[in-house]
Amino acid sequence: MPLVGAPRVERADAVRNRLHLLATAREMLAEQGTENLTMDGLAERAGLGKGTVFRRFGTRAGIFKALMEDEEQAFQKQVLAGPPPLGPGAEPLDRLIAYGRARVGFMIEHREITRAGLDGRQSVPTGSEATLSRMHIRMLLGQIHLGAADLDVLAVQLTAALEGPLLLYLSASDLTEASLQIEERTAQGWQDLVQRVCRP
Amino acid sequence: MPLVGAPRVERADAVRNRLHLLATAREMLAEQGTENLTMDGLAERAGLGKGTVFRRFGTRAGIFKALMEDEEQAFQKQVLAGPPPLGPGAEPLDRLIAYGRARVGFMIEHREITRAGLDGRQSVPTGSEATLSRMHIRMLLGQIHLGAADLDVLAVQLTAALEGPLLLYLSASDLTEASLQIEERTAQGWQDLVQRVCRP
Repeated sequence: MPLVGAPRVERADAVRNRLHLLATAREMLAEQGTENLTMDGLAERAGLGKGTVFRRFGTRAGIFKALMEDEEQAFQKQVLAGPPPLGPGAEPLDRLIAYGRARVGFMIEHREITRAGLDGRQSVPTGSEATLSRMHIRMLLGQIHLGAADLDVLAVQLTAALEGPLLLYLSASDLTEASLQIEERTAQGWQDLVQRVCRP
Repeated sequence: MPLVGAPRVERADAVRNRLHLLATAREMLAEQGTENLTMDGLAERAGLGKGTVFRRFGTRAGIFKALMEDEEQAFQKQVLAGPPPLGPGAEPLDRLIAYGRARVGFMIEHREITRAGLDGRQSVPTGSEATLSRMHIRMLLGQIHLGAADLDVLAVQLTAALEGPLLLYLSASDLTEASLQIEERTAQGWQDLVQRVCRP
């Protein structure tokens, strides 16, 4: 990506390849789970050269990252321009509750991609991975009257309280064996937490 | 480790090797940082066979994990039997505040080990890694009168709010460039958060 100047415009065939590779990767995930999705397997199934796959994704983790970014964009659209209370138009505390509830559902739905997409060399996702949640929570906190609080720190803590349980502290079996119950308890827990934190 | 029967007792020479390897690994970390600490390098420096190092740690990540466990044990002792308010004898809310403040300091002090110790195949530490914080926070929450709350979920959320910022959302440069300020803001943020959550 150029550091200055116009944003990069993908060539039409590159766009086509990317969409085709992501669609193929999704098919493979649905059929075979994350463990069998390899760079070579993806190239073969997609009928493209290995070089194309490597240039596009870099590493196997890059495939999961690209899939996740694609899903994140769709989620972000709902938050920025979808109907309230997730989208604009509701009270900030209601939006904060709705955001967390939607995010819990999103992370549980995409848990395999979220976890498998972490590259071994970059063992925990830092900073940029959390941009949407952190920025959105920070913005909403600014609209709620919280008195003298360090809103930047609080936004990071709430982001971690929201995403951390699913990223760090729940096991794969917690999530598969009792998915619905975990989802509802985590979503309700988020609502309780922000209501406690934001009490006047 | 045997699945049944008496707990394994390390043979004296195994204990000696382990302590010697951990001490050597600490020296190497202090001198050269995490990147240069390899299985081969550790074996050579320690004057032990590669086989001994591999049997002991399994992978490079295993070295970091063992170092971390050693530090965790020392920290745990302070929590379980050290002076109040971190140790027993203070009000539960004061202990909760003291625990988070101490934990932030601990995680910042050991941030290189914490992050480097994550194995690529197990990309995010799940479940057991968080046992101490989660159990301790859960126990203290049970002693504070919180009304109708899902204390198990709240304990996971607060654990994530406490550890997640340092594990997930702060970058290495956040932590090196402004370590003291980040440490104080994060510690103060923890105190503010639990005071808000635990207001009657």
